[in-house]
Amino acid sequence: MKMSQLLGERFKERAFDIASQNLMTRGGYIKQVGNGIYSLFPPAKRIVNKIEAILREEMDALGGQEVLFPVAIPASLWELSGRYTSVGSELVRFSDRSGSPMVLGMTHEEPAVHLAMHVAGTYQKYPFMIYQIQTKFRDEPRARGGLIRVREFTMKDGYSFHTSQEDLEAYYERCYRAYERIFARAGVPEVISVQSDSGMMGGKISHEFMLLADIGEDTLVLCDACGYRANIEAAECITSNETDEVLDPLTLVDTGENKTIEEVCGFLGTDPAKSCKAVVYQRNADDSFVVVFCRGDIDISETKLRNYLKAEIHPAQELESCGLVAGCCGPVNLNAKADVIYDQSLMGATNLVCGANKEGYHYTGFTPSRDVGGAVPYVNVGQAFSGGPCPNCGEPALRISHGIEVGNIFQLGTKYTESMDMTFDDALGNRVHPIMGCYGIGVGRLMASVCEAKHDDYGPIWPISIAPWQVHICALRVDDENVRREADALYIALQAQGIEVLFDDRAVSPGFMFSDADLLGVPIRLVVSPKTLARGAFELVTRDKRVKEDVAIADALSRVRELIAELTAEIEREVPESI
Amino acid sequence: MKMSQLLGERFKERAFDIASQNLMTRGGYIKQVGNGIYSLFPPAKRIVNKIEAILREEMDALGGQEVLFPVAIPASLWELSGRYTSVGSELVRFSDRSGSPMVLGMTHEEPAVHLAMHVAGTYQKYPFMIYQIQTKFRDEPRARGGLIRVREFTMKDGYSFHTSQEDLEAYYERCYRAYERIFARAGVPEVISVQSDSGMMGGKISHEFMLLADIGEDTLVLCDACGYRANIEAAECITSNETDEVLDPLTLVDTGENKTIEEVCGFLGTDPAKSCKAVVYQRNADDSFVVVFCRGDIDISETKLRNYLKAEIHPAQELESCGLVAGCCGPVNLNAKADVIYDQSLMGATNLVCGANKEGYHYTGFTPSRDVGGAVPYVNVGQAFSGGPCPNCGEPALRISHGIEVGNIFQLGTKYTESMDMTFDDALGNRVHPIMGCYGIGVGRLMASVCEAKHDDYGPIWPISIAPWQVHICALRVDDENVRREADALYIALQAQGIEVLFDDRAVSPGFMFSDADLLGVPIRLVVSPKTLARGAFELVTRDKRVKEDVAIADALSRVRELIAELTAEIEREVPESI
Repeated sequence: MKMSQLLGERFKERAFDIASQNLMTRGGYIKQVGNGIYSLFPPAKRIVNKIEAILREEMDALGGQEVLFPVAIPASLWELSGRYTSVGSELVRFSDRSGSPMVLGMTHEEPAVHLAMHVAGTYQKYPFMIYQIQTKFRDEPRARGGLIRVREFTMKDGYSFHTSQEDLEAYYERCYRAYERIFARAGVPEVISVQSDSGMMGGKISHEFMLLADIGEDTLVLCDACGYRANIEAAECITSNETDEVLDPLTLVDTGENKTIEEVCGFLGTDPAKSCKAVVYQRNADDSFVVVFCRGDIDISETKLRNYLKAEIHPAQELESCGLVAGCCGPVNLNAKADVIYDQSLMGATNLVCGANKEGYHYTGFTPSRDVGGAVPYVNVGQAFSGGPCPNCGEPALRISHGIEVGNIFQLGTKYTESMDMTFDDALGNRVHPIMGCYGIGVGRLMASVCEAKHDDYGPIWPISIAPWQVHICALRVDDENVRREADALYIALQAQGIEVLFDDRAVSPGFMFSDADLLGVPIRLVVSPKTLARGAFELVTRDKRVKEDVAIADALSRVRELIAELTAEIEREVPESI
Repeated sequence: MKMSQLLGERFKERAFDIASQNLMTRGGYIKQVGNGIYSLFPPAKRIVNKIEAILREEMDALGGQEVLFPVAIPASLWELSGRYTSVGSELVRFSDRSGSPMVLGMTHEEPAVHLAMHVAGTYQKYPFMIYQIQTKFRDEPRARGGLIRVREFTMKDGYSFHTSQEDLEAYYERCYRAYERIFARAGVPEVISVQSDSGMMGGKISHEFMLLADIGEDTLVLCDACGYRANIEAAECITSNETDEVLDPLTLVDTGENKTIEEVCGFLGTDPAKSCKAVVYQRNADDSFVVVFCRGDIDISETKLRNYLKAEIHPAQELESCGLVAGCCGPVNLNAKADVIYDQSLMGATNLVCGANKEGYHYTGFTPSRDVGGAVPYVNVGQAFSGGPCPNCGEPALRISHGIEVGNIFQLGTKYTESMDMTFDDALGNRVHPIMGCYGIGVGRLMASVCEAKHDDYGPIWPISIAPWQVHICALRVDDENVRREADALYIALQAQGIEVLFDDRAVSPGFMFSDADLLGVPIRLVVSPKTLARGAFELVTRDKRVKEDVAIADALSRVRELIAELTAEIEREVPESI
């Protein structure tokens, strides 16, 4: 490909704060068509094609069979699984010309079961895995960061079907390893896995693959002591309370205008850990109220609360209509039209400050076990915190970090096969629901994540395994006859070897040309100029700046081949063996 | 791939009348998810991947640059081009969570211009062509025939941009040739091109590529004398009228209950070619009426009328409200709220029968030039007919045929670049709108069309260039130790050569196994059985039945390689040179 023909323009001015969005916009990779909707220019599409090839190879190596499901799906399929109503407005719903309700696929469990359900009726056909690489649409409320969080995206999604939990678990391990291989092959072996919340997918065990990055939207809980890693939505919040020997009496105190837990504790000179705060939500479906009481220093995890309630929720808009007193809610003498939940951070707590359900008043000396009964059912809806105890080893060594989710794998169980009534005959002739796993990777987000992990101030530094081209020829002074001839010959010779070459044949200044080259991030660059030719050489530099050398014209081909092999081997060294 | 693991089942019972739909359903290629919406099983996806590879190669050879446009597109882009309102309900419209109107892309001219418009500002960047292979949705009112006419489909669509009409035409020729190459490489060199109507796309010159087939939905006009080929929607209807020497007077006659042109002409003993009939439509937008008068033996082309009116239309539901008398409409004394159009088939006609606009009465002796004025503007909205004169050579040699449209190419002109205001600076510094071409091929429909063209009663006969596998091993009696060993060894040896092999390793009867093999349509079959092994051989047969021979075990690999090369060369012989 010659640069003079490549569609796209590059520019120097900083466009966005997030590195991948900034560099991929400035480098002519992506163009926004709408909120969270992008077109890809040729360099990005070339990277995507290489990532997709890696995905196909790894899925095929797992015995995966490539299929294709539709983007637009009759709502009836989603009604079977119950997700047509349970999933919120991120699911696009529309009607076709006949008025039939349709959805845009945001994940494809239902079509996967639909495809497999009548052709896998006996246990001998199991296990199997089908996958596709297809466009999805998820109407994200907060699209941001270029390809980091979009509404329309290309995804590799795989679905495996098993006759037993043991078989699923064995296959899940193999997929887990395949995912490690995929990220290493794409040049980001530093991607880690964390335990995750299964959310709307159903099932119990699931992992997310995360690239640690400050701009990541996922909050992760990492234990430096034992290596425990989890999404904060999945990490158990461990708290302990020392029970005071003397239980103070419940005492009404005037707290004036102090409302927040910080204000009240400040006013009373109390540690927030010795307080009980109220956090109020409403169910999306009917606006009914839910009051969660927890220790004053603990945050509530909306995800955990949502999972516990099995309902979508939002922070309460106002409290009056249900009889709650804003800023003074407490468990004692509570008279409100609301469900009440006690977080386990209150278990064993004593002598707390809490709201008195009376404007301007709180109680001191609140001891839950005494004042609201010993039989309170505590639930775990608190959020793990920095320095808190690790749910695995118990050490107070939790660290909070951020990550970009580049893939996820779920043990789905029988949620979909039961609801859609897919069965097989087991060895004893019983009709049984197969057990499913599912495995997703967003292609565009992976590309952007690699850019986040591999770039400098001047542009992406693409790993050779997914780089849009392997070699970039910069011909300085193409008006010079020698330069033109040698550069043309080099371009032809490299291509004849099957090497992917971008040839900058434009009559532009060296600074302009190198700036563009940095933005295109091709691993190996060959500079052809009157100066290098005077030395009988090309200048060979790598995008990562580790190599910068003259290479004799006659040796150029073999040196480039050698360097491609080296860069490739470097990546492959990080790829774990398949299971 | 082993058959025991392949997802899908095959069955013998005839399922549909259309061959490709029947065989691809029975063969486990496709599964309907909704009206005109299909999932693809692994064999179909393998074929699709091969077709897509051919498409990429041919588009890249034209200098095409692969990009990706979104499926879900903000309506604002379609408003710019005017198609948001001009296109009917085949365009899916929906609102996203913020209430913004969106569409599902059914063709991507708007995103193509959007991507290119700010990065091709000078004439030096032209010409260029960008293409994608992407899912589209077109809400067809009449989805039918499996993958022949669907609502969701994968399409290769390319868009070229030029600085002059001459440059577009030269490039168009090259694309035309590339299309011939694509169809030949896919195994259907018999695909022909026809002139077509540009419809909603804009532009003047366009061609459709057609596979002639009785089940085809397109009606084609072919001239056996000169080779003229056109879609009937684009073919001019040529008629001539001999002017009678004596013009009869206009005479009112009682025609009783006779209404249709056949009834009236039968009653009066007149040739329908000596009559003038009325065909009444209504504009979709406002239900306003349009009366078309034409010669009684000519049909009206709704497409031509639509193009002439520049409006969507439908046959009139009732006539009374506009003052027309059903069955007796005529040009004389017409007093109706309707636009009146005269088809050119009436030009020069004399002494016709026509309606008298009075219940139960017609006129005889109607001569348009005398009775409705010599200045009638005749338009060409009639439909060419079998045996009619060829618009190219004039011979009365037109033949009507049917075809499946497998591709189309359009010279779009500046419709989109003008409406979206994409410009470039020409060599003189003037700001000019680039001229576009566009080029589409539906991937799934091409696969189904190949099946239509290449099948027998037992299944598809896939050309080796797109077959899901190249070789199919049928191991009869896998319980036999020798069979198992030899078949396993053959499977491994063929795969080691990079040959794509499907290995039927199931313990099923020969009849069952061969029936499945016929439905999977793999070009080369190797049968391993106790009988063939007793002869020291495998049986080698081709799906098209041209080869059936024993091949010694030791020679099997080389014979298969030879046969693959032969079958490949056979296809390549039909592929024309690139321009």
